[in-house]
Amino acid sequence: MGRLVARTQGRGFYPVGHWLDDWLAEQGARDGELTVFLRHTSASLTVQENADPDVQDDLLDALDRLAPEDAGWRHSMEGPDDMPAHVKTVLTGVSLQIPVVAGRLDLGTWQDVYVIEHRTEPHQRSMTLRYLGT
Amino acid sequence: MGRLVARTQGRGFYPVGHWLDDWLAEQGARDGELTVFLRHTSASLTVQENADPDVQDDLLDALDRLAPEDAGWRHSMEGPDDMPAHVKTVLTGVSLQIPVVAGRLDLGTWQDVYVIEHRTEPHQRSMTLRYLGT
Amino acid sequence: MGRLVARTQGRGFYPVGHWLDDWLAEQGARDGELTVFLRHTSASLTVQENADPDVQDDLLDALDRLAPEDAGWRHSMEGPDDMPAHVKTVLTGVSLQIPVVAGRLDLGTWQDVYVIEHRTEPHQRSMTLRYLGT
Repeated sequence: MGRLVARTQGRGFYPVGHWLDDWLAEQGARDGELTVFLRHTSASLTVQENADPDVQDDLLDALDRLAPEDAGWRHSMEGPDDMPAHVKTVLTGVSLQIPVVAGRLDLGTWQDVYVIEHRTEPHQRSMTLRYLGT
Repeated sequence: MGRLVARTQGRGFYPVGHWLDDWLAEQGARDGELTVFLRHTSASLTVQENADPDVQDDLLDALDRLAPEDAGWRHSMEGPDDMPAHVKTVLTGVSLQIPVVAGRLDLGTWQDVYVIEHRTEPHQRSMTLRYLGT
Repeated sequence: MGRLVARTQGRGFYPVGHWLDDWLAEQGARDGELTVFLRHTSASLTVQENADPDVQDDLLDALDRLAPEDAGWRHSMEGPDDMPAHVKTVLTGVSLQIPVVAGRLDLGTWQDVYVIEHRTEPHQRSMTLRYLGT
């Protein structure tokens, strides 16, 4: 079992695939599966395109449209960006399982793993890593 | 392998994390990972905030806006709440993996595990539990 | 570890549960859990209703409303359907874990596993399969 902390600097995509590969190498992982679990309710995990940075900006805008700050949320005491962040987290998820082949994440050519920070302020986002396999 | 049934009383969030911890204790689980799989297409599983109940009400409203009953659905024979329930299930998911550390779910401070009932009427929602680890 | 390729013919739901059961039988799987990971960023995996085909058409329309082609996306060089496909993939996911009982996927009565193709043109969508168990 391992822990990884992503230090985020506001709303955005933060790539973590290289850290996960490093951690797998330290464990001597070969063939199996990695579970990544984010221990937060206003940030999430996703697998997405690693090539054109416009894709990430468009994804952030799409999430904003699905959960706008001015929707009249009951839960507003933690700031206008908090409740939208919870909605975005429910829609994108906090648990990922990724196959490991020959010691590395078996991602597609255009995929990387990202923490999505949905809050405006910097945060420390803690993940639990669990590898099962040989 | 285990089964757990959540008896829901209409649209809402139903916490199940305490049941999962009880089941892990019965298995003698120590360190590994729990898979929870919900065997339904109009209810879902999520990990979300366990503190302010307003968050859950806001999340339900957000899902209603993303899949309103009056959107002119083709599939209407099971009632106006059924097709929106399918959409909400696709957006939030039915499969969760959670790391287990020292015999308990390794959740963050503000996290609990919920069955989200998307239908109006009470239902029995069956989950399959699978623990892998020591 | 196995690979499975779904040859898609445009936007739609493609059932793959029968292929997964066949693959589990070839492995001699009995009791455990299957991870399916889709190695793409514009198609996704979901578990949904296998009975009324209207449900799938309504789901596709719902996803179109959440990520319309005319939303003014920055990322447009791969065609008007590409950026919406990325959004839909983030909302529905590429990683699924399904319990296996007595050698078969332990799905509910109304559930099947689907690749959702979000692009207009045909594609070959590659999945990695990993079985953990007895």
